[in-house]
Amino acid sequence: MEIQKPYLLFLGDAHDPLAAKVAQGIKQWHPEYCVGQFRMEECQADCELPDLDIEAAKAAGAKTLVIGVANRGGIISDKWLVILKEALNAGLDLAAGLHNQLNEIPELVELAKAKGRKMFDVRFPTQTFPVASGKKRSGKRALPVGTDCSVGKMYTALAITEELKSRKIPADFRATGQTGILVSGAGVCVDSVVSDFISGAVEVLAPDNTPEHWDVIEGQGSLFHPSFAGVTTGLIHGAQADALILCHEPTREHMRGTPEYKLPDIQACLDLNLTMARLTNPAAKFVGISVNTSKLSEKDAFALMEKLEAEYGLPTIDPFRQGVARIVDNMLKD
Amino acid sequence: MEIQKPYLLFLGDAHDPLAAKVAQGIKQWHPEYCVGQFRMEECQADCELPDLDIEAAKAAGAKTLVIGVANRGGIISDKWLVILKEALNAGLDLAAGLHNQLNEIPELVELAKAKGRKMFDVRFPTQTFPVASGKKRSGKRALPVGTDCSVGKMYTALAITEELKSRKIPADFRATGQTGILVSGAGVCVDSVVSDFISGAVEVLAPDNTPEHWDVIEGQGSLFHPSFAGVTTGLIHGAQADALILCHEPTREHMRGTPEYKLPDIQACLDLNLTMARLTNPAAKFVGISVNTSKLSEKDAFALMEKLEAEYGLPTIDPFRQGVARIVDNMLKD
Repeated sequence: MEIQKPYLLFLGDAHDPLAAKVAQGIKQWHPEYCVGQFRMEECQADCELPDLDIEAAKAAGAKTLVIGVANRGGIISDKWLVILKEALNAGLDLAAGLHNQLNEIPELVELAKAKGRKMFDVRFPTQTFPVASGKKRSGKRALPVGTDCSVGKMYTALAITEELKSRKIPADFRATGQTGILVSGAGVCVDSVVSDFISGAVEVLAPDNTPEHWDVIEGQGSLFHPSFAGVTTGLIHGAQADALILCHEPTREHMRGTPEYKLPDIQACLDLNLTMARLTNPAAKFVGISVNTSKLSEKDAFALMEKLEAEYGLPTIDPFRQGVARIVDNMLKD
Repeated sequence: MEIQKPYLLFLGDAHDPLAAKVAQGIKQWHPEYCVGQFRMEECQADCELPDLDIEAAKAAGAKTLVIGVANRGGIISDKWLVILKEALNAGLDLAAGLHNQLNEIPELVELAKAKGRKMFDVRFPTQTFPVASGKKRSGKRALPVGTDCSVGKMYTALAITEELKSRKIPADFRATGQTGILVSGAGVCVDSVVSDFISGAVEVLAPDNTPEHWDVIEGQGSLFHPSFAGVTTGLIHGAQADALILCHEPTREHMRGTPEYKLPDIQACLDLNLTMARLTNPAAKFVGISVNTSKLSEKDAFALMEKLEAEYGLPTIDPFRQGVARIVDNMLKD
């Protein structure tokens, strides 16, 4: 799916800034995609974009209203509906990564049809995918993998893509989850793909390319997560990554959502990811460790990263504190 | 899904015996489920069951017509349709594991609705599943895993289930693919489940049980298959197997459907499956090797199995030639 740009970011009635983190992510990584933000009266978030109503957004060139806020309790309220309908009427498409689908709300479906507009529910793939062939593809690929879910894989992938582009190296971020799709405007939510086609979907997402081009593929889950490792395995095999980056959140006490499961040992995590990756790309190697140290003091963060770097012999950085330049240096070596 | 028994096996216009291998499997493993077979004039297969027309099958107590034959080119012919409608009219349910769905043929859907009959397309789960919890379940579980796809995992699982039952040990075969579901009358086609829920589906399929009970779960794919290892990983994690059985076809020259991929080394395959299985069951161990030696002479077969047994220290058998008693002995030790 390919969402038309630029966007009007819908922050709705976000009850705090965190509720609008999807909008924040779009603004952070692609300010050039954003003509403005739409905030309802009670909105507690702010992306520091011009506040535009639907008419003004349309006049400013907006093509799509992107819902950049979580809806509480999974309910799309009547107040939201009024605005979404106004956007369709004005000729905007809609895009959302919500659990409940725009395309299951009859009055929106009818109106979109009447107005010839598209509604993207990015969690739900509309395309069918082939079974993976495992055939080697041209071009280069990088893939962040995690000790756990939600440890910074998307952030790391976006930062690497930006760093490559800043060095004039051709690169694309390939989104595999709903936030990544909304941030970048395209991608496939792989955990919503039928399991026979996980690897095939990733092969389609990151196709043959020129030899010097990098696809930086958003990672998902963890090989050590008892709920999601199947997705991770299929993603790794489809990615055929040349360069792996281990992402880690050092204060996690157990695997996300499953208190019975401890975080894996870092070396075991490097080893198993490499074993898996080498099935479809025998040249796969780790090029760095990306640590989310947001819960540590600067002193503790740097001490930890120094220790990890010494222990595993890989450039170890916090992408938020330091950027990913050292990892990209290592990726591009040889 | 739970298909009503007994069955009338529909062999249709099978162009050779192999085309009716699903029917053959049902007859082999559960002759007590089968009241008879329905063969069209040109049928080249025979399950050695009474030939019954729809009326006679109904009179003999049949509850479901099971399509036990592959349809050529994925087309359900007009000739088949006449018989399927006759079955619905007579009060039989229908079950099939075809790529194209009975439930997508409007005239069948209408008739089934009018007659209050069910149509099972066993490839396509109708249930939704939770995300796996990873929580340890009571009871015991066995899982065959493979060096490749289609190496005898279903056959091995069915044979182990039967051997356990013959020893009066409570056991259930848990089907995870379309043939297994039709053979056993229940199960979940895991490769058709949305990838976020693979492990969750297997947790539902093989739930808590009494301490002495064995669920023998049908394996799928291979951790070394570049197209399907995501399914295999999710299945292994959901299974929480106590006992793993390695299934192998020694004459395979490459991974099924992917000529670029060699078969894995046996030791590497044991190691990786054990690593994966121990995430959700640290006590997991291999209890045997099951070799499909159908393409070898008896002499070569036994020489190979002797060699594998000496090398890996595990009871090594061909379930078709020798049965699985030695593997079950080892499963039940301690």
